Amino acid sequence: MNWPHKDLIAIQDLKPEEIGHILDMASSFKEISKRDIKKVPTLRGKTVVLLFYEASTRTRLSFEIAAKRLSADTTALSASGSSFSKGETIMDAAYNVMAMSPDCIVIRYPYAGIPKKMADLLPCSVINAGDGYNEHPTQALLDMYSMKERFGTLKGLNVAIVGDIMHSRVARSNVYGLKKMGASISLVAPKTLLPPRVETWGAQVLTEFDPVIPHADVIMMLRVQKERLHDRFFPDEREYSFFYGLSKRRVDMMKKDAVIMHPGPMNRGVEITCDAAESARSIILDQVENGVAIRMTLLYLSMGGTSNVD
Amino acid sequence: MNWPHKDLIAIQDLKPEEIGHILDMASSFKEISKRDIKKVPTLRGKTVVLLFYEASTRTRLSFEIAAKRLSADTTALSASGSSFSKGETIMDAAYNVMAMSPDCIVIRYPYAGIPKKMADLLPCSVINAGDGYNEHPTQALLDMYSMKERFGTLKGLNVAIVGDIMHSRVARSNVYGLKKMGASISLVAPKTLLPPRVETWGAQVLTEFDPVIPHADVIMMLRVQKERLHDRFFPDEREYSFFYGLSKRRVDMMKKDAVIMHPGPMNRGVEITCDAAESARSIILDQVENGVAIRMTLLYLSMGGTSNVD
Amino acid sequence: MNWPHKDLIAIQDLKPEEIGHILDMASSFKEISKRDIKKVPTLRGKTVVLLFYEASTRTRLSFEIAAKRLSADTTALSASGSSFSKGETIMDAAYNVMAMSPDCIVIRYPYAGIPKKMADLLPCSVINAGDGYNEHPTQALLDMYSMKERFGTLKGLNVAIVGDIMHSRVARSNVYGLKKMGASISLVAPKTLLPPRVETWGAQVLTEFDPVIPHADVIMMLRVQKERLHDRFFPDEREYSFFYGLSKRRVDMMKKDAVIMHPGPMNRGVEITCDAAESARSIILDQVENGVAIRMTLLYLSMGGTSNVD
Repeated sequence: MNWPHKDLIAIQDLKPEEIGHILDMASSFKEISKRDIKKVPTLRGKTVVLLFYEASTRTRLSFEIAAKRLSADTTALSASGSSFSKGETIMDAAYNVMAMSPDCIVIRYPYAGIPKKMADLLPCSVINAGDGYNEHPTQALLDMYSMKERFGTLKGLNVAIVGDIMHSRVARSNVYGLKKMGASISLVAPKTLLPPRVETWGAQVLTEFDPVIPHADVIMMLRVQKERLHDRFFPDEREYSFFYGLSKRRVDMMKKDAVIMHPGPMNRGVEITCDAAESARSIILDQVENGVAIRMTLLYLSMGGTSNVD
Repeated sequence: MNWPHKDLIAIQDLKPEEIGHILDMASSFKEISKRDIKKVPTLRGKTVVLLFYEASTRTRLSFEIAAKRLSADTTALSASGSSFSKGETIMDAAYNVMAMSPDCIVIRYPYAGIPKKMADLLPCSVINAGDGYNEHPTQALLDMYSMKERFGTLKGLNVAIVGDIMHSRVARSNVYGLKKMGASISLVAPKTLLPPRVETWGAQVLTEFDPVIPHADVIMMLRVQKERLHDRFFPDEREYSFFYGLSKRRVDMMKKDAVIMHPGPMNRGVEITCDAAESARSIILDQVENGVAIRMTLLYLSMGGTSNVD
Repeated sequence: MNWPHKDLIAIQDLKPEEIGHILDMASSFKEISKRDIKKVPTLRGKTVVLLFYEASTRTRLSFEIAAKRLSADTTALSASGSSFSKGETIMDAAYNVMAMSPDCIVIRYPYAGIPKKMADLLPCSVINAGDGYNEHPTQALLDMYSMKERFGTLKGLNVAIVGDIMHSRVARSNVYGLKKMGASISLVAPKTLLPPRVETWGAQVLTEFDPVIPHADVIMMLRVQKERLHDRFFPDEREYSFFYGLSKRRVDMMKKDAVIMHPGPMNRGVEITCDAAESARSIILDQVENGVAIRMTLLYLSMGGTSNVD
């Protein structure tokens, strides 16, 4: 397959066969991280700039390790310690970075739309590492990879996404991707955390958790952003946990082969108990491992890789 | 030319033919960043430590990318997250870094004179990435490169530098360099932002902007440091902008081939309007691009490179 | 010697002959940093993650440079700018990092025991870069290397460690290591800065500094943590300096070949005067230089290196 995209901004932009191609390729990239020498020369001499305007452990580290395993040079800029604190606009910053001839910019930004704007205006590849409440496409791809790895296919899977749907770019990207790949989605959240017009998303929407559990192949718990508490979206952590937390009682109600996912970082005791997080059903760390493989794949494809991965 | 300097601390230290040599070499380094594989083995096995005691996007990134494209290893220390917050002196920190056998230290420091002191006391190369209100020699070199690229020569060019001359290391380094290379300089600023004894700098000094515009080949706008506002150097941003900002009206008064420069980051709407920043006369992003080439050149020369650049 | 340890958590875990082996190997690694091309391919394709939950200049930089000189890829995470500020537990963070298949995690943590826990639970190598008041084993190894380099052997050396013994992981690790290697240790501190049960450490304990000076081969000054002042462990800096600071008067009392050490960063004028810090007896910067060699050795040994160092 000749990869047609310079950028990865949104799952919305990908055709089902393109998602399938990414998931297929990721398997060979995953194997590289299991070698004794975890490095291939594929992207030698390429410059990847990581622009992270929000705190991040996993995603920044995952991209950085992915790029280095492909022999690219990486350099990271975070919002603190940069001129962005001096009042420069994000697009001026982007043009400045572009002037240094990067091959790829990986951007996380607190508001929606900036990665798309960069992709449109800059000649280099741009990969969206999460923009506001909009999309987090590499997360959805690693989630889909993890499901497919477990179940062989995404077609016909029943996936329940539980928690703060309204503010979750992870939920949005997964809904878009899973629908394209033929999965059925249930969204579970208190009414205050459901976005407007959620009924147009093509998913079943519920405000009660228990009824979906026995039918779900995958239960994906979303992080409770503690700052939402202050915005009074729900009464308190304990009540949230009681109604929407994944507890041992709920894990025991799950289908025989059903799995538990979480994009991290987890609030243990809020949206997920320790029992659930550490149960044999949890594939939460597989998600993280697969994240490196997915990001290697996307860096490779976006920068026009055509040579064989060796 | 056998490069005689271990360090680059000040444009003041360079002879005109040395500046000319740097500008000439930078062209071949610039070409590397246009390749598909943007990397040469020139500085393999060299250690470059970036000590940045002030926020910086462009300069830190530019040096880091420059070093990596020459295959040097880089490691960055910023003031936050280091022991410098524990009360260690800057020179103790410098000796400590030196004990780890770096080949080059790139230093940005909020007060004048520290890079010079390091260069005098440490056996490794030291490159000044900006020290207080003193000098920012790599900025001046990239500015001169950008002018020469456009006009073929610096000799006889009319360069107007406009804004906060008093606190600008960019202005100082450019004045020193441009004079050596035979350009004529006009400094334009409100009286409160002119340094003492500016009349000894060998430049024309004006407090009005409009009269210099029709004669300038280059108009270099300086950033308004917002913190100066609090020190009451000028009444407010709007008044500053009216008297000293580069607006469409002023752009239209410029000579046919004259260009606009700015060291970044820009305060759009203060010292430069969007019209001016994005006009076809602007070579602001060329400056950034040339910055990588200039820094590759200086890293190469300072570390005693004699092999051919390939 | 076939290295039996996946991790380095505590000097307590090492046999004397293992310490001897590390010190021997470090000499060949030290030589690499003196070459023109300071890089060997020994750890090419290995991923080293530096997790620093406390501010650090020297140690983080030292590990990073050590890893790069062995051609490993490094990536650093600090507490700020990571999800750890989002309430994730340190062990969840560790499992997440592990899922990205690092070969080694270097961890500094403000509380004791976390590196040990990581080493027990993670399959990759874990190196303790300082955990709370517990241990700082690489510091003790570089200190012992520096003493052995000067005196030829550790056996029978008289080492005085002076200052805040109670809160010092450097003191603990040095006491454990030096005892194993046959040195005699004197601990000098005000009573308020001696830990409970210090008499079981197997060292001479004194509250007066002067009596030990004429007998010591090594005087190792500990940093005064300024924050202790607020906890009222001693009246003020001047009184501390008078009773426990290393001054010119005290330096003049030292044995002919005796040396001065300090783990850094120094508080000049508090625990050590400028005279003492810069006297010919000071091997403080040798310690820093040897730190890179010790860390190269430990990275190499921990990651199962068996190939020759070239």
